[in-house]
Amino acid sequence: MTGDSGAMPRVFLRPGNDQRISRGHPWAYSNEIRLDPATKELAPGALVRLHRADGKPLGVGSFNPHALIAFRLFDPDPDAVVDADFFAARLHRALASRQRLFAVPYYRLLHAEADGFPGLIADRFGDTMVLQVNTAAMEGLAPAWSAALEAVVAPAVIVLRNDTAMRLSERLTQEVSVEKGEVTGPVKVCEGAAVYLADVVAGQKTGWFYDQRDNRAAVAAVSAGARVLDVFCHSGGFAIAAALQGARTCVGVDSSELALGLAQQAAAANAVSERCSFRRGDAFDALTEYVSSGERFDVVICDPPAFVKSRKDLATGLRGYRKLARLAATVVAPGGMLFVASCSHNVEAAPFAIEVARGIDAAGRSGRILREGGAAADHPRHLHLPESTYLKSLLIQID
Amino acid sequence: MTGDSGAMPRVFLRPGNDQRISRGHPWAYSNEIRLDPATKELAPGALVRLHRADGKPLGVGSFNPHALIAFRLFDPDPDAVVDADFFAARLHRALASRQRLFAVPYYRLLHAEADGFPGLIADRFGDTMVLQVNTAAMEGLAPAWSAALEAVVAPAVIVLRNDTAMRLSERLTQEVSVEKGEVTGPVKVCEGAAVYLADVVAGQKTGWFYDQRDNRAAVAAVSAGARVLDVFCHSGGFAIAAALQGARTCVGVDSSELALGLAQQAAAANAVSERCSFRRGDAFDALTEYVSSGERFDVVICDPPAFVKSRKDLATGLRGYRKLARLAATVVAPGGMLFVASCSHNVEAAPFAIEVARGIDAAGRSGRILREGGAAADHPRHLHLPESTYLKSLLIQID
Repeated sequence: MTGDSGAMPRVFLRPGNDQRISRGHPWAYSNEIRLDPATKELAPGALVRLHRADGKPLGVGSFNPHALIAFRLFDPDPDAVVDADFFAARLHRALASRQRLFAVPYYRLLHAEADGFPGLIADRFGDTMVLQVNTAAMEGLAPAWSAALEAVVAPAVIVLRNDTAMRLSERLTQEVSVEKGEVTGPVKVCEGAAVYLADVVAGQKTGWFYDQRDNRAAVAAVSAGARVLDVFCHSGGFAIAAALQGARTCVGVDSSELALGLAQQAAAANAVSERCSFRRGDAFDALTEYVSSGERFDVVICDPPAFVKSRKDLATGLRGYRKLARLAATVVAPGGMLFVASCSHNVEAAPFAIEVARGIDAAGRSGRILREGGAAADHPRHLHLPESTYLKSLLIQID
Repeated sequence: MTGDSGAMPRVFLRPGNDQRISRGHPWAYSNEIRLDPATKELAPGALVRLHRADGKPLGVGSFNPHALIAFRLFDPDPDAVVDADFFAARLHRALASRQRLFAVPYYRLLHAEADGFPGLIADRFGDTMVLQVNTAAMEGLAPAWSAALEAVVAPAVIVLRNDTAMRLSERLTQEVSVEKGEVTGPVKVCEGAAVYLADVVAGQKTGWFYDQRDNRAAVAAVSAGARVLDVFCHSGGFAIAAALQGARTCVGVDSSELALGLAQQAAAANAVSERCSFRRGDAFDALTEYVSSGERFDVVICDPPAFVKSRKDLATGLRGYRKLARLAATVVAPGGMLFVASCSHNVEAAPFAIEVARGIDAAGRSGRILREGGAAADHPRHLHLPESTYLKSLLIQID
């Protein structure tokens, strides 16, 4: 296949911009690339060979002149051929990793760069696979990776959740489609001792947040006998895990009727309906009501959607985390637990922890951090892409 | 007790040095304190009331004019009385927290500032308590906290492991003593499914590293069927946990004959002796031998002592972590796991991960980080003392 590779368009870094990528980072930004007329005319998402300014080849990857992350490395081998076999080898590796980590086929199977699939996310729910195609390159390479997916996993159902914000930055359209098989209703999610339900077509993201797996287990482990409040409860992941570990009562609050319906069904499926109640509402409003009413909880869970969607929202978002921590800490009974998470890419762990601590101070409470948690192991991190870390969580005992 | 409190010596911050402590940080450095003649004459470890330069009281704490961390806050209440009752209330709180986290009484009970005991560490092994008294203040307050310990826990055996480096900076002597009861041999440690043995008199630190509890569980969970190599194996904590989860073979290497003896006894106690072997050696030498011999392992564990004991050792220490990762990654079989930890206070998580990644690069290998772990929940973190974070670990799958 050397012929194919030889015909691959060449893209050059501007002088002096190769240090990061030479050290293993898999991206080049648009301002680091020499945008000569031929390069500008490349189709968005074209496979190219990246070269240093002096001509030294740095590897094969995808190029999109319209995207800020203009080049994404697929392979440091400049002669790599990106075809179905290429993707099948990486899929086998990703599958073997998950099979070692989990007893049942419910997990994120592909986590973009870290699994060698820049721009592609795949969550597995048994024989249903839900994908997010986030780049023009992966859109164009669909025939190759689809063939690999058939060969390695052969899912009965494939759903494309191509309604992500990231697609807009790649100038792709947003749409949801069922590519293979049929989705007849919510799909089952098996996680630890619990069975949940996910709406893979209309639910948030792929329908389920596997990344919180370990955090759910950690919160559930301190929930025996507890009165639990889960604001932003989504489909009941934390609340039902806590109920299964012996929580006395679990109250879930969410703004989505869809998510609450799934939570109620899941509570029934786990035989914890009697101890779980879910109601529609705004998380801040619900907390404010409890602050006023004086009702207190032994475990309060706050897993909000990203408050900081872009860097310009940073200050506002940080204030949001502080306010959330202040209200939530107030309704924690003395000696109880507060769990707070942030999935904002733009907020690092240190400032997040500072705002949460200030919120607890503002509530007139004190405490200590028992655990700092990240995303579960099926959301691996590329060795040279620390900025892909996004999920941070704190489990705090409140005096 | 207002009388006692009123008689407490007063120490003043220099103007403009109150921001950090006003925000909740529990320390003041010697250069932030007004060292007038009366202050200089205070006995090291005296309890004092700290005031802002303008006279506003900031709380009660301990003062040592010889220590860099000259003031350690015990209570923001300026009228707090630090006596046996004061410590008993905090001990009750710490005990309740551990009893909620763990089924059996084997844990760190007191983790200094985070548990409201600045300068005191206490590890519990059933009815044996092993303490580190790290400040002149806690040395002086021994009658008060000892009475509280008797009232709340009443341990049969109390060992003082006052051989810590930190005592030197407080101008305290180093010694080990059995304060109550008798130590007749290694004490039992119950952790998860394993039983270990700790030498609480002659072993490293308090004799056991409870902080690695969750990390041991995470490594053991990926060790079924694996050939495991544990360099810096100490008393066998990781290796035996892995063997209990079905590791095929476990090889432990350590430089301490004492630790290896305990590891061998523990392997026997857990009925995994046939699959575990422990040998004396230097970790780097052992890894270098395996690099040469070509023997490979499915799981390689590196939990070294701190490479960076002070900031001036930072560059050397970071190179040490890089070299360790390079050698260790080389002897990981394709698809296997590398666990690397750092307990150096002076190395933050981000530079540690960078050095480990560079080491893996230098080995000509690639991989992905599956898990970033810290210390277990019985080593809580003070809300306003992020610099007390010390344990960092990475579980990396190596291609």
